[in-house]
Amino acid sequence: MYKQSGPKRVVILGGGFAGVYTARQLLKKARPGEITVDLVSMDNFMAFQPLLPEVISGSVGIADTATPIRQILTGATIHLREVESVDVENRRVICSAGFQPHLLELNYDHLVIALGNVCNFQGMTGLAEHAMPFKNLADAITLRNHIIRIMEEADCEKSEAFRRELLTFVVGGGGFSGVEVIAQIHGLIWRARRNYPNINMDECRFILVHSQDRILPEVAAKLGHYAEKQLRKRNIEILLGCRLRSATPRSAILADGREIRTRTLVSTVPSQPHPVVEALIRQQGWQQSTPDGRKRPMVRLPDTPMLQMEGFSDVWAVGDCAQVPLPMKAGQAQAYAPPTAQHASREAVSCARNILADMRGEKGKAFNFFGIGALASLGRRRGVAQILGVCISGFPAWVLWRLVHLGKLPGIYRKFRVGLSWLFDFIFPSDIIQLSLKQSGGIRQEHYETGETVFEQGDVGDRVYVLIKGEVEVMRHENDQVCRLAQLHSGDIFGEMAVLHRSPRNATIRCLEPSEVLSIERHQFDTLIHCLNDLGSSVRATAESRSNCNDKTDV
Amino acid sequence: MYKQSGPKRVVILGGGFAGVYTARQLLKKARPGEITVDLVSMDNFMAFQPLLPEVISGSVGIADTATPIRQILTGATIHLREVESVDVENRRVICSAGFQPHLLELNYDHLVIALGNVCNFQGMTGLAEHAMPFKNLADAITLRNHIIRIMEEADCEKSEAFRRELLTFVVGGGGFSGVEVIAQIHGLIWRARRNYPNINMDECRFILVHSQDRILPEVAAKLGHYAEKQLRKRNIEILLGCRLRSATPRSAILADGREIRTRTLVSTVPSQPHPVVEALIRQQGWQQSTPDGRKRPMVRLPDTPMLQMEGFSDVWAVGDCAQVPLPMKAGQAQAYAPPTAQHASREAVSCARNILADMRGEKGKAFNFFGIGALASLGRRRGVAQILGVCISGFPAWVLWRLVHLGKLPGIYRKFRVGLSWLFDFIFPSDIIQLSLKQSGGIRQEHYETGETVFEQGDVGDRVYVLIKGEVEVMRHENDQVCRLAQLHSGDIFGEMAVLHRSPRNATIRCLEPSEVLSIERHQFDTLIHCLNDLGSSVRATAESRSNCNDKTDV
Repeated sequence: MYKQSGPKRVVILGGGFAGVYTARQLLKKARPGEITVDLVSMDNFMAFQPLLPEVISGSVGIADTATPIRQILTGATIHLREVESVDVENRRVICSAGFQPHLLELNYDHLVIALGNVCNFQGMTGLAEHAMPFKNLADAITLRNHIIRIMEEADCEKSEAFRRELLTFVVGGGGFSGVEVIAQIHGLIWRARRNYPNINMDECRFILVHSQDRILPEVAAKLGHYAEKQLRKRNIEILLGCRLRSATPRSAILADGREIRTRTLVSTVPSQPHPVVEALIRQQGWQQSTPDGRKRPMVRLPDTPMLQMEGFSDVWAVGDCAQVPLPMKAGQAQAYAPPTAQHASREAVSCARNILADMRGEKGKAFNFFGIGALASLGRRRGVAQILGVCISGFPAWVLWRLVHLGKLPGIYRKFRVGLSWLFDFIFPSDIIQLSLKQSGGIRQEHYETGETVFEQGDVGDRVYVLIKGEVEVMRHENDQVCRLAQLHSGDIFGEMAVLHRSPRNATIRCLEPSEVLSIERHQFDTLIHCLNDLGSSVRATAESRSNCNDKTDV
Repeated sequence: MYKQSGPKRVVILGGGFAGVYTARQLLKKARPGEITVDLVSMDNFMAFQPLLPEVISGSVGIADTATPIRQILTGATIHLREVESVDVENRRVICSAGFQPHLLELNYDHLVIALGNVCNFQGMTGLAEHAMPFKNLADAITLRNHIIRIMEEADCEKSEAFRRELLTFVVGGGGFSGVEVIAQIHGLIWRARRNYPNINMDECRFILVHSQDRILPEVAAKLGHYAEKQLRKRNIEILLGCRLRSATPRSAILADGREIRTRTLVSTVPSQPHPVVEALIRQQGWQQSTPDGRKRPMVRLPDTPMLQMEGFSDVWAVGDCAQVPLPMKAGQAQAYAPPTAQHASREAVSCARNILADMRGEKGKAFNFFGIGALASLGRRRGVAQILGVCISGFPAWVLWRLVHLGKLPGIYRKFRVGLSWLFDFIFPSDIIQLSLKQSGGIRQEHYETGETVFEQGDVGDRVYVLIKGEVEVMRHENDQVCRLAQLHSGDIFGEMAVLHRSPRNATIRCLEPSEVLSIERHQFDTLIHCLNDLGSSVRATAESRSNCNDKTDV
């Protein structure tokens, strides 16, 4: 197990509110030389979640909701990686490879898990393939681009039926997120309508599908009803007591069999643990009692009030991935902190304090925050708010929503920019720009010069290669000796063993002449051989014959 | 051939300065009912080219250089498509499919070709695969994201050699574009250095590779030398009389054999005609005399001074894809309009005027504009300018550059936003955000419900499918009859015939039960079967056996 003298090493997984604020608090409160902080994040910025729906309509700029982590967090080492696995026995985290094909291994004295959660489409066929998630900034930008593309197509489409299909927008989930998303989709089309003279607002359908009997279950019933009335006024249809059953490229299908022809299906529900968290839950056998008495795996990390994982003194959990119990109130059932930015940032403070207390041999404090309130913008200068039990709706709630979030937004320049965007919203039309970034494909061609290596022994196996033109040799380093195992020619496949077995490359491929290779990304290769029998069996046969070879040339 | 009474139909290909301004002028100058205008563009915005390099450093916002075409062009029909081919005999343009799998056919009375040009990597192995182009907004954003990613990696990379490789930036081409790009890459890293405490400016290498003996050949020699001095002061290396020979994923190789280890190679030279323009040049057999007396195909559309194509009264060419002769000056060789925004927008005005004159039986006017001057920003408040023959350099040139471009930028709000960005540049640090948008892959899974069609007879064949789970039937409509040709089962491939033969689907695929299919995009499928012999031959065998069948089940 990893042990070290000197500063204690704290590793934080996740770059959202919970992770970044825990890191910031730790660095702020620690004594010099007491700790080092490593933060692992997928993005180099922290998205300001409450404003994400506004990105759809363009009320705020694309990058205005993003704060660079390095700007709010100095003194931490930031790794832009995906977390692959957590090894709590050996106090070790494995992260994905970067530019170089080596996994990143981080040892810790304390681990903070703040990975949030991911979309869960279990039991709903086709949703994983055809529904758009709404979780992060990339989702918001993708959705905005998609809707602009839809408007462009609809504007010059002659067929009535197909226009109708294009101009139908379905959002699943009537919580805060779903309500704000449908309102902002409506807002985007409303704001852009003058640019698309052939699109009539009356032929657009906006549908919100919600499983409960009223929307906005997070706030009081009267606010939910107010929101419903406001949305219905704009011809947004609200289907209550209704679930999505499945989806295809051209339709959303409800549990009662109704089919809605659409090209835009957004799902804001439900969520499941991050794969790494799920693996940990499974490994530890954590279970949850359900109302019917059966045991089910936890959907969040079980927490003690100290934010420290039960049975571990060095593993902590904060944010949406953690189930944080709130102090019991007399006569009430156990309540847990809801998955909001408000709670995540408070949990972060609590967690940082408790980690430092633990290091210093002091006593930590239980998490104790019941929330100040909840706010939602309905767009078109309407909102709902419930602050310390008081319900506010309409224009005042909308103003309050803007003011509170402007206040919470990190950075003066960002506040200024968002404030200005909101101001100019009244005066100038917003720009309806469809950004399309070409990304390097999963299947691509690569060129190598003589003497260059395509990959080296010990590298992570993240791609499979086919030699199109040229000659390469297969080399293995063993006991300080280099032996040449084989020479490959055009048409030969290589690199498949490491990918199939999820093991490091056990040989080096070096080019003997300028060579062209086809390179296939791991996931696309998996999908391909899973589905294409011919290709699959030929690849497997090659792999097997190589395995059986005496020299085990499993390149 | 297409003929129509009533308004004349003008079809414009290309959404850059040349295309959009031609459309705008036509709509402005035409009499009511005289014309209709259709514009085909890949993007729904017009990028303000001169500011693109500033997107790299973040001096201007991502979207600030883009003006929505619909905002500056009312009254035209805009098609967001790729141009596939031009049929000048039948006065017809074929464009790619949108959401529905049908090609778009546009008939015209007058055709304006304003497709610009594309990167040409002929003779330079590996550049197509590994060099980043710098042509449009997507390229600028991609480059910025890439460099931020590089800095993130370098900041926590321990290996000296690999850090050096990461922090080496190579730009090919010492014209305006190349000089501005290398200056802005330097600027981005300079501005961001405080966020990356482990990156030292001294370990970064910036290299500009240029084939001629001085940079900025567009302006007077003394300005080129000034720019060179300015860049060298910032430790930007300038390799003169030097060309790129090839590129690999890890290096740029020069013509003299020198290898520069790098992960960032940007090419700003040279360009070749858009594929559609190239096809037209080949078809018409247009040739150009070269200095050595041999004939070569034109690299731009040969033009008369009227911007009307020789031999056609209804085909016009403007912008970078056209070779527009300028009036001869005594004792000088024939000069042509350079490929700048300045000239493109003037050509547009000329072209619109001549098209309307042609329709009205009036006489057109030859293009006659020699340019006002040229400006380049070197970053760090330095620039060069040559206005009506007068050379200016340093801070005044840089201020002039900003003022001129602020003035030219379309739209008050956009001027305001860019002006503000420039102002705040002095006060606030810029946000170093790496935007990564996940895009739907070339290989993906799709879900269909019973009764749904995967594709229909007559559709464009843009994807190949493999049935993973479920059952589908193959149907053909012939002489008002529908016949059932076959039933396919899991593991069967379909849709490959239309893709291999570039023909429309000649049957419909309908699901008999809920089905999962693997869908492979045409280009990725082409690459795959080209390279993977096993897969290729099995696919070809299937296709052949189906062709030979009596019923020709070429689904």
